[in-house]
Amino acid sequence: MTPSPPEATRTETDSIGPIEVPAAAYWGAQTQRSIENFPFGSTERMPIGIVHALAIVKQAAARVNRAPGVAGGLDGAVADAIEQAAGEVIAGQHDDQFPLVIWQTGSGTQSNMNANEVIAGRANEAITGQRGGKSPVHPNDHVNLGQSSNDSFPTALHIAAARAVTDALLPALERLHDALAAKSAAWTDIVKIGRTHLQDATPLTLGQEFSGYAQQLADARQRIAQALSGVMLLAQGGTAVGTGLNASEGFDVAVAEEIAAITGLPFRTAPNKFEALASNDALVHLSGTLNVAAVALTKIANDIRLLGSGPRSGLGELDLPANEPGSSIMPGKVNPTQCEMLTMVAAQVIGNHQAVTVGGLQGHLELNVFKPLIGAAVLRSIHLLAVGADSFATRCVDGLEPNRARITDLVERSLMLVTALAPEIGYDNAAKIAKYAHEQQLTLREAGLKLGLVDDATFDRLVRPETMV
Amino acid sequence: MTPSPPEATRTETDSIGPIEVPAAAYWGAQTQRSIENFPFGSTERMPIGIVHALAIVKQAAARVNRAPGVAGGLDGAVADAIEQAAGEVIAGQHDDQFPLVIWQTGSGTQSNMNANEVIAGRANEAITGQRGGKSPVHPNDHVNLGQSSNDSFPTALHIAAARAVTDALLPALERLHDALAAKSAAWTDIVKIGRTHLQDATPLTLGQEFSGYAQQLADARQRIAQALSGVMLLAQGGTAVGTGLNASEGFDVAVAEEIAAITGLPFRTAPNKFEALASNDALVHLSGTLNVAAVALTKIANDIRLLGSGPRSGLGELDLPANEPGSSIMPGKVNPTQCEMLTMVAAQVIGNHQAVTVGGLQGHLELNVFKPLIGAAVLRSIHLLAVGADSFATRCVDGLEPNRARITDLVERSLMLVTALAPEIGYDNAAKIAKYAHEQQLTLREAGLKLGLVDDATFDRLVRPETMV
Amino acid sequence: MTPSPPEATRTETDSIGPIEVPAAAYWGAQTQRSIENFPFGSTERMPIGIVHALAIVKQAAARVNRAPGVAGGLDGAVADAIEQAAGEVIAGQHDDQFPLVIWQTGSGTQSNMNANEVIAGRANEAITGQRGGKSPVHPNDHVNLGQSSNDSFPTALHIAAARAVTDALLPALERLHDALAAKSAAWTDIVKIGRTHLQDATPLTLGQEFSGYAQQLADARQRIAQALSGVMLLAQGGTAVGTGLNASEGFDVAVAEEIAAITGLPFRTAPNKFEALASNDALVHLSGTLNVAAVALTKIANDIRLLGSGPRSGLGELDLPANEPGSSIMPGKVNPTQCEMLTMVAAQVIGNHQAVTVGGLQGHLELNVFKPLIGAAVLRSIHLLAVGADSFATRCVDGLEPNRARITDLVERSLMLVTALAPEIGYDNAAKIAKYAHEQQLTLREAGLKLGLVDDATFDRLVRPETMV
Amino acid sequence: MTPSPPEATRTETDSIGPIEVPAAAYWGAQTQRSIENFPFGSTERMPIGIVHALAIVKQAAARVNRAPGVAGGLDGAVADAIEQAAGEVIAGQHDDQFPLVIWQTGSGTQSNMNANEVIAGRANEAITGQRGGKSPVHPNDHVNLGQSSNDSFPTALHIAAARAVTDALLPALERLHDALAAKSAAWTDIVKIGRTHLQDATPLTLGQEFSGYAQQLADARQRIAQALSGVMLLAQGGTAVGTGLNASEGFDVAVAEEIAAITGLPFRTAPNKFEALASNDALVHLSGTLNVAAVALTKIANDIRLLGSGPRSGLGELDLPANEPGSSIMPGKVNPTQCEMLTMVAAQVIGNHQAVTVGGLQGHLELNVFKPLIGAAVLRSIHLLAVGADSFATRCVDGLEPNRARITDLVERSLMLVTALAPEIGYDNAAKIAKYAHEQQLTLREAGLKLGLVDDATFDRLVRPETMV
Repeated sequence: MTPSPPEATRTETDSIGPIEVPAAAYWGAQTQRSIENFPFGSTERMPIGIVHALAIVKQAAARVNRAPGVAGGLDGAVADAIEQAAGEVIAGQHDDQFPLVIWQTGSGTQSNMNANEVIAGRANEAITGQRGGKSPVHPNDHVNLGQSSNDSFPTALHIAAARAVTDALLPALERLHDALAAKSAAWTDIVKIGRTHLQDATPLTLGQEFSGYAQQLADARQRIAQALSGVMLLAQGGTAVGTGLNASEGFDVAVAEEIAAITGLPFRTAPNKFEALASNDALVHLSGTLNVAAVALTKIANDIRLLGSGPRSGLGELDLPANEPGSSIMPGKVNPTQCEMLTMVAAQVIGNHQAVTVGGLQGHLELNVFKPLIGAAVLRSIHLLAVGADSFATRCVDGLEPNRARITDLVERSLMLVTALAPEIGYDNAAKIAKYAHEQQLTLREAGLKLGLVDDATFDRLVRPETMV
Repeated sequence: MTPSPPEATRTETDSIGPIEVPAAAYWGAQTQRSIENFPFGSTERMPIGIVHALAIVKQAAARVNRAPGVAGGLDGAVADAIEQAAGEVIAGQHDDQFPLVIWQTGSGTQSNMNANEVIAGRANEAITGQRGGKSPVHPNDHVNLGQSSNDSFPTALHIAAARAVTDALLPALERLHDALAAKSAAWTDIVKIGRTHLQDATPLTLGQEFSGYAQQLADARQRIAQALSGVMLLAQGGTAVGTGLNASEGFDVAVAEEIAAITGLPFRTAPNKFEALASNDALVHLSGTLNVAAVALTKIANDIRLLGSGPRSGLGELDLPANEPGSSIMPGKVNPTQCEMLTMVAAQVIGNHQAVTVGGLQGHLELNVFKPLIGAAVLRSIHLLAVGADSFATRCVDGLEPNRARITDLVERSLMLVTALAPEIGYDNAAKIAKYAHEQQLTLREAGLKLGLVDDATFDRLVRPETMV
Repeated sequence: MTPSPPEATRTETDSIGPIEVPAAAYWGAQTQRSIENFPFGSTERMPIGIVHALAIVKQAAARVNRAPGVAGGLDGAVADAIEQAAGEVIAGQHDDQFPLVIWQTGSGTQSNMNANEVIAGRANEAITGQRGGKSPVHPNDHVNLGQSSNDSFPTALHIAAARAVTDALLPALERLHDALAAKSAAWTDIVKIGRTHLQDATPLTLGQEFSGYAQQLADARQRIAQALSGVMLLAQGGTAVGTGLNASEGFDVAVAEEIAAITGLPFRTAPNKFEALASNDALVHLSGTLNVAAVALTKIANDIRLLGSGPRSGLGELDLPANEPGSSIMPGKVNPTQCEMLTMVAAQVIGNHQAVTVGGLQGHLELNVFKPLIGAAVLRSIHLLAVGADSFATRCVDGLEPNRARITDLVERSLMLVTALAPEIGYDNAAKIAKYAHEQQLTLREAGLKLGLVDDATFDRLVRPETMV
Repeated sequence: MTPSPPEATRTETDSIGPIEVPAAAYWGAQTQRSIENFPFGSTERMPIGIVHALAIVKQAAARVNRAPGVAGGLDGAVADAIEQAAGEVIAGQHDDQFPLVIWQTGSGTQSNMNANEVIAGRANEAITGQRGGKSPVHPNDHVNLGQSSNDSFPTALHIAAARAVTDALLPALERLHDALAAKSAAWTDIVKIGRTHLQDATPLTLGQEFSGYAQQLADARQRIAQALSGVMLLAQGGTAVGTGLNASEGFDVAVAEEIAAITGLPFRTAPNKFEALASNDALVHLSGTLNVAAVALTKIANDIRLLGSGPRSGLGELDLPANEPGSSIMPGKVNPTQCEMLTMVAAQVIGNHQAVTVGGLQGHLELNVFKPLIGAAVLRSIHLLAVGADSFATRCVDGLEPNRARITDLVERSLMLVTALAPEIGYDNAAKIAKYAHEQQLTLREAGLKLGLVDDATFDRLVRPETMV
């Protein structure tokens, strides 16, 4: 929540003039101005993952800028203080110092300045005991040295997205894949009716059905992992327009190496910085792979709620775990709440993909200025899919139980099995049995016996769904 | 199809120079140039409804321009010839003379010129016996008099959309509404199980269920009709940038009146021509109401295919009409092909809405140059919904039959009905019956009798789903 | 944030069994279970507007349920306590008691229970001094009396959306309209170059240009207001499947009247409750009108940043207010941050519309279970547009200043003005002047004089852009 | 166009009964029935690429089915006739025999039957001289042998998409990449003003600016190529539900090999047929990469029309080729028609992606029944991007010319260059010069000289934009 009006303030200044900031805040004038200029409130905060990623940029830059031989480089004590302060931000110790919202300058300038100001303000505190300010550590001259919002912010978006995908989403999709694959493996012997066009079709096993879901998850995961390769390319070093003006020679390569070292992820400097500033195509593409994952998850969750429909008047092939009260008086009514959560999450991811697409296509010349929108929407989608998939695996898939009696009943009542009789009694007689069974609402066996076209032994020998799968 | 290389050609010219056009063509140089500059082929042609609407503009303009007192107005013979030629185009007699594709200049300039050239070319033929050319009737000076592509083309889009909605879509939605309402009225006595979360719930009548669908259709239709009010406002008279430069005094009001007279629709001149050229918000809004219709149709078609699922292993409450062979050996397998058609159509309409949105948001200054995209997408959506809804009414809804035995069976087996026993035997005993029935796979009656908690007469007296709806 | 592990807890129970809840919490077992089952964290909380709207439902229901003659109605003391507790929730005094996230059961059951539990828990505290529990006020039997999540939650969504639109969005759009209209009125005398296809065109006034924007805003506002009429129809009274089972006779009409009284908005009971539960078309339609508003706002903000581009190398016709530091060394560089904010906001609204569409189309049978997604996305879109439009009016449009010198310079240099000479010196000579001016990079006047085709006096008399607008 | 009512007909039959088909048609009863059941008209035909791909499936299947050892395999003469007839369809000799529309059964059954019937009808003609019919070559028993619509149709979609991408789209994107890269290489020495936030920024070369575009194209192309790997996996062999019932052992592997041989593309059998029928995720993913390409193309085309805006009142840095008349009286007005075409095409591709997403997420159980929608939308997007990119390269990018005088003028007038003076005259003096230049509308040189803070020689030595890029 935006801090309530502080009792005590101090004065900070920027090129527009002086402004009061809360005495307890590490931030400075530009952050304070942004709070006032974009009054969307605390529900619209910049995702904290982006804040942490900006601090990673600052820490990495300080490490490069202190290197001997860097012209105009950082003094060791200043660099130490920046690294230390940035480390605290990365560790989440100052999350409350980042009150800015997503909806600000399209380059993320204010969030970049928020990071610069807080890190400088904390570094100054460490050195002087005085919170905030610009001396001895200056937000622009030291923390932002060799950087511009135009390259730092897209770099932070790539770092934040790559971390969230790697740490949360890929494991969650793997978790769900494994849960589905385990069910597939456990249910290889359960022969059930297939359905196409929602109409009865030839049989398959429940294991086969779930193998398709597992395959969808494996593919979804692999597409996202593949899209990460573009996210691993960092804009940092392009500075304002991509030329790298004001960054030291080799800064781009070195800072990417430091970021890789800090995160343990294979980041590299982008081969073309003009593209890296002017477009966000790599994130649009990542979003596209999240969109496919949302499509796959919707299909799977929809199937499971359909197979679990009932208890009396639905398909009833699966029993879903009861995580919360359904109907107090009606036993067996278990609402597919995890399916509902997951398909809602998927719909928002699909919508976010559209937002990202609309933002991605509108850049002008040297800079796309829809970066906060794109970054925030992608990060939210990653979070929603990660938590959603993991929860769905744990609270739904793991607990699924086949209703074997129902499954067997349905497959045995199916008219499609009549095809198994055709080779022996002829297609015409087989069709006669099916037609009679349909009209009289009989099983195939009953119809065959009544019509005298087949006997029990023959029926048992031929009509074996398990051989059709 | 783009005409194959013509054996005979004639030479036409524009400001770029001479160009060969097929001798048989009415069109001139600018049309020919567009054919060559935008080689998308015949599958991407500008919708014919827009072509006809352009001819309506030309006919209306000729009527205004011939009026006595219009400075620089049309000579009577020229005006006659234009009106006549335009009338032929409106009547569909020259559809093959409009080979241009959607993907051209964003103002629709080439399609406007195509109309100017063909009408002039046909008028010249009527007067001189010589097809094409610019004399005595000139495409720009006479047919396009007082107009610009910038106001004619958006006017044509509004005319085309309003005609298609009025002539095809609203009647089709009404047709489908009536079909659904007829079923609702016919099925007021069929008590069935309700389903929420796809789980068994309290009963309702099949008529009530279909009354909801009918309400959705009535609302969808009304929203579209309401959105038409904005489409009735015409840009014509704004000329190049909205100021009306080069159009005669009062041209805007007069031409709208003529267009209203020709079409029988209540067109009026737009109150602000700057908005009418620079934005296409009225069409974006219309598209939004098509989007809601698509959403509603998807829901209804999905429900019907779900209720018609089976014949043995689905819900099986409805029998769908068999329009084409399902399975040759499995009687009763009727694929819900009209549902599938309708939901696919709806998905394309939803996609087109996105295309229209993306086009609508990107205009620059005095002119939005995504007009052909927007017009073509909206017209296609109208066509798809109109044919889809009408076909769905005729080939699916009209032929739906309730499977009364199945419906009754399901509602009687439902455990939800136990609530009707609670007031008399107590909530706890009622819950016991339900639980026992669920565990033992019994009907409520069977469970109640077995547990000795209710007798047949009491059960018959209390458990009457028809009183719960 | 999800409350950290509480030091003290108490035990609450539901049909699944006992569960520990924080001692300080008013909520009960079902809320607690939802916290654990949907671990998305505090950034994904159900919008508080929906929580307040649920409390409005509860307050209104208590007023109806206490009415003499309502069978099984509420005891006066219980009704008083519910009304009082609900009033506190409406007033925002218990916002921290609603920790649940958007991504839960698709009917919003848990948020409905959260409201039932908190209101009962607070009412019990008021009566007994003991926080929480189910006696004397029971969450289901009393607070939820005559209701189901299936009708309460969609009712709350309609209330929340209608309040946010009425209280925040419509005023903000009017505010922005007025700001644009004021500029339009102030700038009627500023003749400027028109641009179509981003190419120089005939002139218009800056006031005319802004009149188009004002018209877009007026239309956007009116479409949203019109869409509210569907949102004013409430599902309440349909209970579980639309039949109104368990609600007292006339409950639907009476509760809508109470809600109208509480909110001061013209709510009415929905004519068809089956539609009102099974579809969310009214919200999909409202979202469609938000989508058009986003399209219009994008167009306007894009134009303003284009007209304000510069200071030296852009169009430079408008000076934007400087809200924050641009470049410290480059005076005149003012980043169009409010334009960037507004176009990003619009992109998210467009994306949310897609999410709402995808949720809206997927309902099954008697209940659409994408309600929390739809409600949260629509409310977020309303909030984003409201704050965005208001801020844009205040921090951008109000402070816009025309750069008159630049505007005059551009219009005078324009070659399009040559058309004014044609009637007097002939089209061919006029074209010669324009061509010469273009080739030699001269003004029209210079070219005309050099070619000897016009003199100063004639030029002054004829070439007057102000007569062309 | 749907054939007009034929004078002569013959009778064909299916399981529903006899039906008249045009005597000249090769197709049979099921095709005819589909024409009548889905009356969308000729503008909605199934894309011909899908028809050809179905014929490839039939030819490949015949080759596998004739193989010695295939139980129930094809007689040699029948196989020969099928291969021959299918070859004619692949070659486009029977395009008029495929009148069916996109909007049909969601499995594409009717188009599959159209292919079966036409190939059988043509094969029968070749053998017997009698067009059509079912003997000696039967549409189902022979042409469709070992297949189902459920696996043939998705296989055809993959084949059609892979061919169109490989043959048309990837070359077109490479063509456009090369055109952009050629400009980038040619313009390495043209130093120009950079623009961020549409505001003047530090300089770069025009070559660098275009290198970013070339990079976007290279990346877009590579993402699409990568997505093809999933499209190379074929469903064929899964038959009705994925189990492969009725297909001979090894049919899946063998038919994929034949298809690879026919097309020259590396098709393989899908590892999981259940996924391959029940989902269309591979096409949704391909569509996602088309979506990114559309985003990139929009950005590039928007930039080029912005840089080409003018001739007098825009940025004016690029001269666009004049492909058609702009304004007849205003020389130099060249409308960016290829940019407008390309951005419109991109908007439709983005919309189609949404349609594909909505179709992809709605499958039920063993079969996704949105296949014709998905296939047609993806193929249209591929076609639009391929023709659009190629035309844009040829008719726009190739002909771009830099306006060197204008570019130099703008960069020299820029205030950003003042940063180059700071190291020598001090930051404060440099800022004074910039401020004075801005206020007095002077060049930096003029301001510096007037203020006496710099001399000509120093200015010439220091202010060299070419060193800043």
